[in-house]
Amino acid sequence: MDAGENRFAEAPAAQPDRPAAAVTGTLFGVGMGPGDPDYLTVRAMRVLEHAPVLVHFCKKGRRGNARTIADAVLPPEPAREFALAYPYTTELHPDHPDYVGALAAFYDDAAGQLADHLGAGRDVAILSEGDPFFYGSFMHLWRRLKDRFPVEVVPGVTGMSGCWTKAGTPITWGDDVLTVLPATLPAADLAARLAGTDAAVIMKLGRHLPKVRAALREAGLLGRAVYVERGTMAGERVVPLADKPDDVAPYFSMVLVPGEGRRP
Amino acid sequence: MDAGENRFAEAPAAQPDRPAAAVTGTLFGVGMGPGDPDYLTVRAMRVLEHAPVLVHFCKKGRRGNARTIADAVLPPEPAREFALAYPYTTELHPDHPDYVGALAAFYDDAAGQLADHLGAGRDVAILSEGDPFFYGSFMHLWRRLKDRFPVEVVPGVTGMSGCWTKAGTPITWGDDVLTVLPATLPAADLAARLAGTDAAVIMKLGRHLPKVRAALREAGLLGRAVYVERGTMAGERVVPLADKPDDVAPYFSMVLVPGEGRRP
Repeated sequence: MDAGENRFAEAPAAQPDRPAAAVTGTLFGVGMGPGDPDYLTVRAMRVLEHAPVLVHFCKKGRRGNARTIADAVLPPEPAREFALAYPYTTELHPDHPDYVGALAAFYDDAAGQLADHLGAGRDVAILSEGDPFFYGSFMHLWRRLKDRFPVEVVPGVTGMSGCWTKAGTPITWGDDVLTVLPATLPAADLAARLAGTDAAVIMKLGRHLPKVRAALREAGLLGRAVYVERGTMAGERVVPLADKPDDVAPYFSMVLVPGEGRRP
Repeated sequence: MDAGENRFAEAPAAQPDRPAAAVTGTLFGVGMGPGDPDYLTVRAMRVLEHAPVLVHFCKKGRRGNARTIADAVLPPEPAREFALAYPYTTELHPDHPDYVGALAAFYDDAAGQLADHLGAGRDVAILSEGDPFFYGSFMHLWRRLKDRFPVEVVPGVTGMSGCWTKAGTPITWGDDVLTVLPATLPAADLAARLAGTDAAVIMKLGRHLPKVRAALREAGLLGRAVYVERGTMAGERVVPLADKPDDVAPYFSMVLVPGEGRRP
């Protein structure tokens, strides 16, 4: 083991037991937080600094979002980094067999690349937006590698925490129920779930914003909804959804419906 | 302003605009994360280091949980710290008028103490378990002070992120709906909401664990439920709920029902 790897051991009880003679590396899923690098954790900073192999996801021909978050703390180091480029830049429906098949092959291939490093004793850190176990691509590699290699997941501040922080609004009070909804759900399902919750976060807006707007209106919640774009990042924008004149919603955007529970 | 306060200005766009001649301090809500101090953010560490007044909540005669998280990085400094002790150690029902009234008076008084410091130009940092705007006591002071003083909220890794990380299970995949439920809800409501979601986190277990167990059984989810106690902290315990022989659930415990969504 190299010096960097020894320094990982500073983490209290965070690393799985490893036999003294282990020659495999550890797979790290590193939560990069919502965007502002000041919201990286102490543990994430340590892993980023020392891991001999750093990996991030990206769309073809684009910078990866998780890597961009690291820019302020981690100059590009081509010698220890590589990107995993998703197979499609234009989206098929996620349930389309061609899409599922292409993604599965992509994750299989990526897992194979990481296994080569891990098998050779090199720790691999996967930079993951937000929290690695909350809607993260990391999980698809984790699923393929977890039974063969030691794993450490470093939890992160979620994108939604970053957004409600910058919207300046608590999301849940007292006994509020919070529902996290992908905007991809059918309109009627969205409206019913919104009507039945105290607080909501609606993710993956994309082209679904008109549907989300209609569902919020139907649930009587449009007036409480807040649209947040690029929360905690450069170009951040917070606006009541009712005041947003268009239905354009980039990747880093979500809608919040703050709870109104017990406030003594 | 003292040197410490100037150093706060390093944060990118995190501090509200303040007039050049402002003499009031800033109210900081500092997310302390799930328990392991390695999961504090860079920003939280900076605020804890420099704030001239540090405040935490506690039960009478006990150490505050948020303060305990800080122990590893912050030796006790009585000269700049004080605790806010909740008025009750044994619980009345949260909706009982006496409880609501006593809590309101407690928060009013606490806000008054903080306002004295803020009005005198001293920044005040409130140590908040998890994320300050997610079921946090901080919000009750924020609500009373936000229109009079500048505020900065530092988001944190939530307790639930810490728990699913240590349970070694992703909580949401693909288009999973996540529902966060307080165990205080009526049994029928709990069961119905559990039956209608893809993934769930059940918080505030306390004496409600038998009810939670029954609701999970009714929803057909008991076999998927994981009980996590003191996630990321000393004494951490992770066990399938079905295997937990008793119904004892301390303050830092929750039940997770991991989603099983799209996994290409």
